[in-house]
Amino acid sequence: MTLPTLVRVVGTGLLGTSIGLALRARGVDVVLTDPSPTARALARDLGAGRLAGPDDVPDLVMVAAPPDVVADVVAAELAAHPDAVVTDVASVKGGPLDALRAAGADLTRYVGGHPLAGRERSGPVAARADLFAGRPWVLTPSAESGDDALALVRAVAVAVGASVAVMDAAEHDEAVAAVSHVPQIAASLVAARLRSLPENAVALAGQGIRDVTRIAASDPQMWTQILAGNAGAVVRTLRAVQADLTELLAALDALSDPSVTGARATIAALVASGNEGQARIPGKHGSAPTSYAHVVVLVPDRPGELARLLHDVGSAGVNLEDLRLEHSEGQPVGLAEVAVLPAAEQPLVEALRGLGWNVQA
Amino acid sequence: MTLPTLVRVVGTGLLGTSIGLALRARGVDVVLTDPSPTARALARDLGAGRLAGPDDVPDLVMVAAPPDVVADVVAAELAAHPDAVVTDVASVKGGPLDALRAAGADLTRYVGGHPLAGRERSGPVAARADLFAGRPWVLTPSAESGDDALALVRAVAVAVGASVAVMDAAEHDEAVAAVSHVPQIAASLVAARLRSLPENAVALAGQGIRDVTRIAASDPQMWTQILAGNAGAVVRTLRAVQADLTELLAALDALSDPSVTGARATIAALVASGNEGQARIPGKHGSAPTSYAHVVVLVPDRPGELARLLHDVGSAGVNLEDLRLEHSEGQPVGLAEVAVLPAAEQPLVEALRGLGWNVQA
Repeated sequence: MTLPTLVRVVGTGLLGTSIGLALRARGVDVVLTDPSPTARALARDLGAGRLAGPDDVPDLVMVAAPPDVVADVVAAELAAHPDAVVTDVASVKGGPLDALRAAGADLTRYVGGHPLAGRERSGPVAARADLFAGRPWVLTPSAESGDDALALVRAVAVAVGASVAVMDAAEHDEAVAAVSHVPQIAASLVAARLRSLPENAVALAGQGIRDVTRIAASDPQMWTQILAGNAGAVVRTLRAVQADLTELLAALDALSDPSVTGARATIAALVASGNEGQARIPGKHGSAPTSYAHVVVLVPDRPGELARLLHDVGSAGVNLEDLRLEHSEGQPVGLAEVAVLPAAEQPLVEALRGLGWNVQA
Repeated sequence: MTLPTLVRVVGTGLLGTSIGLALRARGVDVVLTDPSPTARALARDLGAGRLAGPDDVPDLVMVAAPPDVVADVVAAELAAHPDAVVTDVASVKGGPLDALRAAGADLTRYVGGHPLAGRERSGPVAARADLFAGRPWVLTPSAESGDDALALVRAVAVAVGASVAVMDAAEHDEAVAAVSHVPQIAASLVAARLRSLPENAVALAGQGIRDVTRIAASDPQMWTQILAGNAGAVVRTLRAVQADLTELLAALDALSDPSVTGARATIAALVASGNEGQARIPGKHGSAPTSYAHVVVLVPDRPGELARLLHDVGSAGVNLEDLRLEHSEGQPVGLAEVAVLPAAEQPLVEALRGLGWNVQA
């Protein structure tokens, strides 16, 4: 796969600057532009490329603009650089493609893209050359996209370490509605209920609600733009959620009416559906989900104690597949839940106990 | 606080057996009973106490029966042991109290309780003496409960290491609806949407949906019993969620109608409400939420590498406040996100880089 010679990055926020850094690290010439003079100068100073000049003739343009302007920017770049392939990194793909088609843009040279590599922070300062390492990067060629155009964009995504997935724009939007946008909304809905809760009730929050609401801390403006940009697919998935919720509420209400039967079956069926869906989420490294054994160890809350534990896990020759820390309310001790392959559980428990660890198994 | 002399544990599942183990470890005499001869014999063999005989006169009875039978069992124990204080560990408190009052039980000797200390596994084999260490244990005395009865139950909860919180039964049920039952439902609703998703769409699942749906793997029968037992409070919180969802759907639909304004403000307001609610969740050790700095380090996926990293964190004199592992799809490398106090961020980044770690900051 041949990398482009000169890449023009339009928009030097987190993603644009990270792409510049990643390509510069691989020796590709990169020119940068952004409506904000501060943002483009910062990206240059960080090493993401040089400032774009009027004589630069890119063979690939990467548009890293917000979703609500991405179609206009892509159309302008296709017109300004008639020999270049143009791609973008917006998190919604159907709307921009429709807008480009309606505007009569040259779609043979356009391939939409979406690297799934956000961070909590934004802006060029948060950029990193390895932002895409090991992350999915979806490419959404249209019927008009040329094979060469797809190959060029794919080469860049692969070069920066991403795992490329190809699907059409509508499939992409339905997928991210279900795996990203609706989970975000659910987290916000649950977290919003905590606003008016008494202090002693909030104090009962355990690991479950912490996990469910972690992403509820996200930026409202960014999420408004993402949800608005993918409103069609988000609404379809949310309506299905709404239907399940309405059915559940009816079942909970019916419990107080002894003449209605089957309410408990409805509740159990919803929880069972959640079991099935959750089990489909791929495990570590994209492999099929594996049932790990979980070994729970009490760890004193002092510097170095968790390190000592994991050193002892490593010494036992056991690979740690996952690790979760549980926070104990009011106690100077934590619980470390170490996930290992089932065959490693007993040997690990014995090894750790032999070294004096308080293992709960 | 004086511990009871003889505790009778009724129901030797996970919680009952764990209470027996914890009290035996503190020298308290414990007698066990359970409708299942296997369960009670197993609990005895595990060291949770001796089998209850007709001549045992307990001063405290701990009822660890399922929520749908707990009121009947508590009433029977109050009647059978006219000098004993009786408590229970069911996760709903209002319904059983109402049933006991309606049945004319002696409520002066009854204090409801709810230790928030579940596990994924159930049954006596999963029991542990330290199950309650550092966990909240809510006590819900009624207007009738005697002070001595409350003091005796509190002494047991404190002795097994729990943090006692006192509130009334209705407050408890509203609290757990918001911090436990509704988050569980939200996780199930989101996970249920994955059932019919194409394989390549599920493959885009990232850390966000993993966190939101982790608890969706819970047992349908157990959750049906919990939700049915707290249906009133769950319905009240769920109706508020339903109202927010309906408003959000209307806003998303209105985006396609240029004559409607304010739709984006509605969407942003929901996400902002989620920010506010999420920020109220207490931090580690029950302290006020702290904004930690997050240092992200690339860790090769080999035994001992994470231990080496944490050893180096400890050597830098930095206490690790939290740790998350991110799973990179298809890559033999993980990202460890180390949370530390903000003042420790820069020294830690420099120390780790000096030791050759690939730190993303």
